[in-house]
Amino acid sequence: MKKYIIIVAGGKGLRMGGEIPKQFLPIKGKPVLMRTLETFSICDETIERIVVLPVDQQDYWKHLCKIYGFTLSHRIANGGETRFHSVKNGLALVEDNALVGVHDGVRPFVSSKVISECYRMAEVSGAAIPVTDVVETLRQVTENGNSQTVPRNCYKLVQTPQVFLSSLLKQAYSQPYTSCFTDDASVVEAWGHRVELVEGNRENVKLTTPFDLKLAEMILS
Amino acid sequence: MKKYIIIVAGGKGLRMGGEIPKQFLPIKGKPVLMRTLETFSICDETIERIVVLPVDQQDYWKHLCKIYGFTLSHRIANGGETRFHSVKNGLALVEDNALVGVHDGVRPFVSSKVISECYRMAEVSGAAIPVTDVVETLRQVTENGNSQTVPRNCYKLVQTPQVFLSSLLKQAYSQPYTSCFTDDASVVEAWGHRVELVEGNRENVKLTTPFDLKLAEMILS
Repeated sequence: MKKYIIIVAGGKGLRMGGEIPKQFLPIKGKPVLMRTLETFSICDETIERIVVLPVDQQDYWKHLCKIYGFTLSHRIANGGETRFHSVKNGLALVEDNALVGVHDGVRPFVSSKVISECYRMAEVSGAAIPVTDVVETLRQVTENGNSQTVPRNCYKLVQTPQVFLSSLLKQAYSQPYTSCFTDDASVVEAWGHRVELVEGNRENVKLTTPFDLKLAEMILS
Repeated sequence: MKKYIIIVAGGKGLRMGGEIPKQFLPIKGKPVLMRTLETFSICDETIERIVVLPVDQQDYWKHLCKIYGFTLSHRIANGGETRFHSVKNGLALVEDNALVGVHDGVRPFVSSKVISECYRMAEVSGAAIPVTDVVETLRQVTENGNSQTVPRNCYKLVQTPQVFLSSLLKQAYSQPYTSCFTDDASVVEAWGHRVELVEGNRENVKLTTPFDLKLAEMILS
């Protein structure tokens, strides 16, 4: 079955405290987004790569690719108003009867094993996402400002790539947008399809703060 | 008000894959537990330090202190069957009408600001704990094996030190043990006292896996 990966890189990077969107910041001398693309290429060269980027960042990205001599093939789709709209734009480039993953551009450290397992499980069940255990005590904050401990073994932290049968994901993304759609799994579940959980790798962190970038340098060294 | 910190170091360290309990593993050339003690000393030298250690690890710890020339004063209490019993043993060394914090021995990176703020808030309200935001999508796993996305902004990840009025914490720890007591806040809440949340620092990770130890080396470098 043909495979696609939609890499969403819409982040404005405001939390980084800098001007450059975080997907373009270098870790160990190479922009995060290039490392993310390479991770999928190393796992399976046949996965077709689509990068979703805000229109006003596309020239900068092409310029970066030239500077870094980055030649890994990929198509570019236009970023939308929200992540939902960005993924939808990426999906327009995907065939039916294929498998399609959606991945955060700022998660370069997903393992090959996790990528493979998500595609394998999605082919069987239609929808698969990587999750990890919650290692800290978890509290639920209630409306009146109180909070209480909840059993952490009843919760999982969700990563990407989230992988689906492309026809299923396209149907799910035909629903009207609501703010409850925080990831692709929630869109697919709202459409009425169950999502299977795959064990993720803990290093697959989302690089969202300067602390995370330091972490990234460490993982690479 | 007099201040205590009970540092719980009961971990068998099984998740580390090695024989040495994780609180004794060196990061940047010094055992984790020594670094944790130093963190509190640097924040406020007047905080009286109590280390809770399994009886069969106490000689090894004293030996380590000698080897590393570690002279920071602290008393030692005996570890118990569970964390609950360990904390209770530590509490026996604490005066009434004081403030007492309970901290994981494998969290050397708590900031001075967070420590100070927890003691300050506990003096005002009786109970204060540091928490951080959940940055990943969070799913709740239900009994039938299904799972669903829950709003992550309604949840917080809990760290330590958890700080309390000592009389309150002693009363709370006089309750019979149940497995719902996953941290000190849950014991105090079961006793009927509200717990205040303080903004924690994200670097204050709990070192529980080899990956975490690598992370620790990075934070120190």
